[in-house]
Amino acid sequence: MAIKVGVIGCGYWGPNIIRNFSELDATQLYYVCDLNKAALDKISMSYPSAKITQNYQDLLADDQVDAIAVITPVDYHYQIAKKALQAGKHVLIEKPMAGSVAEAEELVQLADQQSKVLMVDHTFEYAQPINAIKKIIDSGEIGDIYYIRAEWLNLGLLQPDVNVIWDLATHIFSIVSYVSGMNPISLKANADAYVRKDIPEVAHVNVAYPNGITAYMTVSWLEPKKTRRLTIIGSQKTLIYDLINVEEPIKIYDKGIDLTDISGDIHQLRVNYRYGDVLSPNIKNIEPLREMCSHFAACIDQDKIPVSDGRSGLNVVRMLDATEQSLNNNGLEISLE
Amino acid sequence: MAIKVGVIGCGYWGPNIIRNFSELDATQLYYVCDLNKAALDKISMSYPSAKITQNYQDLLADDQVDAIAVITPVDYHYQIAKKALQAGKHVLIEKPMAGSVAEAEELVQLADQQSKVLMVDHTFEYAQPINAIKKIIDSGEIGDIYYIRAEWLNLGLLQPDVNVIWDLATHIFSIVSYVSGMNPISLKANADAYVRKDIPEVAHVNVAYPNGITAYMTVSWLEPKKTRRLTIIGSQKTLIYDLINVEEPIKIYDKGIDLTDISGDIHQLRVNYRYGDVLSPNIKNIEPLREMCSHFAACIDQDKIPVSDGRSGLNVVRMLDATEQSLNNNGLEISLE
Amino acid sequence: MAIKVGVIGCGYWGPNIIRNFSELDATQLYYVCDLNKAALDKISMSYPSAKITQNYQDLLADDQVDAIAVITPVDYHYQIAKKALQAGKHVLIEKPMAGSVAEAEELVQLADQQSKVLMVDHTFEYAQPINAIKKIIDSGEIGDIYYIRAEWLNLGLLQPDVNVIWDLATHIFSIVSYVSGMNPISLKANADAYVRKDIPEVAHVNVAYPNGITAYMTVSWLEPKKTRRLTIIGSQKTLIYDLINVEEPIKIYDKGIDLTDISGDIHQLRVNYRYGDVLSPNIKNIEPLREMCSHFAACIDQDKIPVSDGRSGLNVVRMLDATEQSLNNNGLEISLE
Amino acid sequence: MAIKVGVIGCGYWGPNIIRNFSELDATQLYYVCDLNKAALDKISMSYPSAKITQNYQDLLADDQVDAIAVITPVDYHYQIAKKALQAGKHVLIEKPMAGSVAEAEELVQLADQQSKVLMVDHTFEYAQPINAIKKIIDSGEIGDIYYIRAEWLNLGLLQPDVNVIWDLATHIFSIVSYVSGMNPISLKANADAYVRKDIPEVAHVNVAYPNGITAYMTVSWLEPKKTRRLTIIGSQKTLIYDLINVEEPIKIYDKGIDLTDISGDIHQLRVNYRYGDVLSPNIKNIEPLREMCSHFAACIDQDKIPVSDGRSGLNVVRMLDATEQSLNNNGLEISLE
Repeated sequence: MAIKVGVIGCGYWGPNIIRNFSELDATQLYYVCDLNKAALDKISMSYPSAKITQNYQDLLADDQVDAIAVITPVDYHYQIAKKALQAGKHVLIEKPMAGSVAEAEELVQLADQQSKVLMVDHTFEYAQPINAIKKIIDSGEIGDIYYIRAEWLNLGLLQPDVNVIWDLATHIFSIVSYVSGMNPISLKANADAYVRKDIPEVAHVNVAYPNGITAYMTVSWLEPKKTRRLTIIGSQKTLIYDLINVEEPIKIYDKGIDLTDISGDIHQLRVNYRYGDVLSPNIKNIEPLREMCSHFAACIDQDKIPVSDGRSGLNVVRMLDATEQSLNNNGLEISLE
Repeated sequence: MAIKVGVIGCGYWGPNIIRNFSELDATQLYYVCDLNKAALDKISMSYPSAKITQNYQDLLADDQVDAIAVITPVDYHYQIAKKALQAGKHVLIEKPMAGSVAEAEELVQLADQQSKVLMVDHTFEYAQPINAIKKIIDSGEIGDIYYIRAEWLNLGLLQPDVNVIWDLATHIFSIVSYVSGMNPISLKANADAYVRKDIPEVAHVNVAYPNGITAYMTVSWLEPKKTRRLTIIGSQKTLIYDLINVEEPIKIYDKGIDLTDISGDIHQLRVNYRYGDVLSPNIKNIEPLREMCSHFAACIDQDKIPVSDGRSGLNVVRMLDATEQSLNNNGLEISLE
Repeated sequence: MAIKVGVIGCGYWGPNIIRNFSELDATQLYYVCDLNKAALDKISMSYPSAKITQNYQDLLADDQVDAIAVITPVDYHYQIAKKALQAGKHVLIEKPMAGSVAEAEELVQLADQQSKVLMVDHTFEYAQPINAIKKIIDSGEIGDIYYIRAEWLNLGLLQPDVNVIWDLATHIFSIVSYVSGMNPISLKANADAYVRKDIPEVAHVNVAYPNGITAYMTVSWLEPKKTRRLTIIGSQKTLIYDLINVEEPIKIYDKGIDLTDISGDIHQLRVNYRYGDVLSPNIKNIEPLREMCSHFAACIDQDKIPVSDGRSGLNVVRMLDATEQSLNNNGLEISLE
Repeated sequence: MAIKVGVIGCGYWGPNIIRNFSELDATQLYYVCDLNKAALDKISMSYPSAKITQNYQDLLADDQVDAIAVITPVDYHYQIAKKALQAGKHVLIEKPMAGSVAEAEELVQLADQQSKVLMVDHTFEYAQPINAIKKIIDSGEIGDIYYIRAEWLNLGLLQPDVNVIWDLATHIFSIVSYVSGMNPISLKANADAYVRKDIPEVAHVNVAYPNGITAYMTVSWLEPKKTRRLTIIGSQKTLIYDLINVEEPIKIYDKGIDLTDISGDIHQLRVNYRYGDVLSPNIKNIEPLREMCSHFAACIDQDKIPVSDGRSGLNVVRMLDATEQSLNNNGLEISLE
């Protein structure tokens, strides 16, 4: 039987979640909540069979509701998710999971106690290209990772209370941890505001991973050329992911540098350059959000731990929190362990 | 009458300089020096009318020689340029001008005393696209500069004694100062080595300029996709220079963010997004090195100060020196004033 | 009051039409028909307020229905559209309008007699980039058109009973006539089949327009790199439309050739090349189908002649018919006047 | 011992040939001829050891000269090459080999009689990407060739006495025959003039090859976006060569259409689409002209038949001649057998 889902929040992202829960066989769009009556009415037009309310407590009180999707502004995530777990519902939360580490930790603990699925909508972890990249890395094809560069740039949308790191770097934090399978050790952040002066619009975050691997991240709200690029430099090959290049989003460069120790003296190492082919693997075109919603249902149904579970969401919140600390201390390196 | 030029150094870059001084009407390739006999012989085959020697003192002692081009490894720049100036020659030095600030300062002073032209081969300052960018900025078309991003990336060539900053960032230092007309205030650098472990192969340098402008620079020797990109975000427009895009190297995006103060309260500022055309101005195809060599001759002939004069070269050496200090102090901000 | 629309055909394209008529304020999705019960049920799930039937006569008999959209295979267009017009309905037909010139002519005549709106879904005529191109041509910016090249290439979808010209060239026929404002004089076609041997998969059509203007068209079902490109060479500038380039779909090259008559002798004409900027005008992102459906409603409401009216649809059918004649006569030039 | 080469013609292309013969070890630039004294003097400045003359008969009379390169306008090819062969010289001729089939045939015959190397400068046949393409086709990787499309487009240079086919299609004729290893059966051509009205500036040539293979060729002098593109559609894969894409000039698309005969009835064939990777093979960067000149020397030295020998040059002249016949007969199909 289909899992009955209640969605709280019909703003910018909510309708996409609603559409997918409505279209999937495994789920039923059962209840929708928003404070905004007009938004609610619009949803009701398209999905007349769904119940609606302006009071989210109604969803928690409804025994028919199996699962709650919290798609509100981040400030409300903790409070709603907590009550939903307490009410015995499975919970999906829009990213980032919570506004503070303490809140995120409490939700993880609570989900464990309640034996409920707690999942965060890190949509990219369900995207075909990202999973293709994970497989390529896991296969050893690119060798050891040397370093990673990520650029997430676009024009706006400037947000009133959250800086560009919370908006854009959240994606990269989730992606890099996911594809590399590594936990970050520490990070440094710096950020600048140019238009509004008070809320950072451009930021650089350098995240240290084990084995000397570094991920250099650049995010900006001020760039007219939209960019979503991930460069993974390996000892054997380099992989570049460019989301904007629809035809060839992933390219694997069989080019690199080999060192030959010709005398035992490091200063005598011979540097060789390898120049090989460029391969762009075929990537299926499946909507990541569909995969994410489907995975949520499957985890509930089969009592599985989601790929982007509460702990994964907590890790991202820890990184966001660390960027705040670093920004407040002039780029100080903040430990994540 | 043509200026008689002596070129010291026929290695990687020397032959390009030699070809241009040979082809220009305003100059005569009069003397060529290199320690390597084979390299010298090869030059002699192509330019049989040029005198050759393995001893650079011969050029300094020859009264016929008007000007000396020092195209040797950086370690020899100071010593040779100093003697050349003392011998009353005009001097062109390959970038970077010298291995230390003190050396560069001494050369500037000496050139002033000798009333000789001292010029540094910051080739990009003579490139058509860079000069087009300078004009666009000077015209006010892009408005106030908010920030600049620059990426200079390629696979190798790993150098035995110089890190990637000295190799690649030198270009960006010279370009950014030139097109913006600004002097840097301070910088921070961090760098990592992955292949050889001892000499940095990837680096990030953040340079602070007046009015809160920052230039974020990334350089790497480990990237198979060659990149030479400069992004200049202005209050009105954004300019992106992509040297690898031969057809449209410069693009001006008439897109940006406007703030409207609707109430006197900064938190009530209304954010508007402008979406306009993209313009790629026509750029003439002239070899920058030809322009550079020609400018050197014109400065000698007309007793002018070169665009990339000794002071300009000194500024770049100061920045390189500051990156060393910053790297040795875990990314500390180093003043340049 | 909203126009009540009945849609006949829920196959590949129908759901897009249905969605738009459902979402627009000016129209109401009132009735949907398809022979396939499963397809009909799926529509009913999403649009529970719409009536459904497997018999299209039901729509024609329903007095509430103001307008009929015929989104069936081309073989049924004529029959259904004829009955709908006779029943006093306004009619929108999927492209191409009909399977023969005679049928298309009869529909045009009938719509005139009935004083009903007859419109063909030449979607591209409602696309923002195509309308931008029309404005640019009309403004005289590119000068006189010399010639036009169009390439519409992709992998499949091979169709069982229609060749690649009917599938892909239909779009180009409509676009070129629309943006140029010209009527074709004659055409030649040749075509080849490689995979299935019997139904052409690759074709070239050369269409002659007044003033010596030619449009050279290439269409193929066998090319893995999807291409939608229109090159319009003018006496002053050249415009290239590349639908696949989402960021810069239109580029205007201010480059060309000028002739200067320096002696009155044509063989003494001096050829000058102009090299100027490349401009990519900003194009708004509006769904063309939305515009098309909205225009259909406006024409009904205000008793206007649609941009892609029956005559425009007839002209495209005439061109398709002429390609058949040309193919059957080894590429013979077929008059369209 | 180095082969002593005499070059006749120092215009647009000559200096490139001269440079290569001068730089190669296997050849010696021995003699240079041009009617234009200024051009000759300029060559003499750069290559002072080469003899010069304004009378090409001097080269033929000089016993030291082993080989002659005829780099003049096409009208002089036959006359000079004939005399050179008669004088016992090996001959390299700039493309196209001659102005008529009869002349080309006579030169082939004469070279046979004299047992001298006769080679045509079809430079592309010595380019790394073209040879990579030939190897890929020969390996069977792309399966059977279905058809080929070629576009050679640019702005000018309008020539006074030769049409765009002689200028640009010559390259494609040589390339397609070379990479496919096939001889053309027939061709059709049509062409138009827009700027000068008398000499065709845009042309389409369809060349029929064995096994139903067709090569569709488009050439133009009126297009501001320079294009050099070859699309080879095979039963297994498709190869696209784009000379302007310096980073990835060749792409092999593992995408295509499979037919499965499910019932013995051709109308019941099931169409399957394969979507696979895109591979861009690594191509070494070697100057094609260097390879060509080197190959000429090797053929002389080892008494080998050149890749682009006289017969190959004759075939191209036959195709050019056939385009003239076709143009004069309104696109009539002209046999090449």
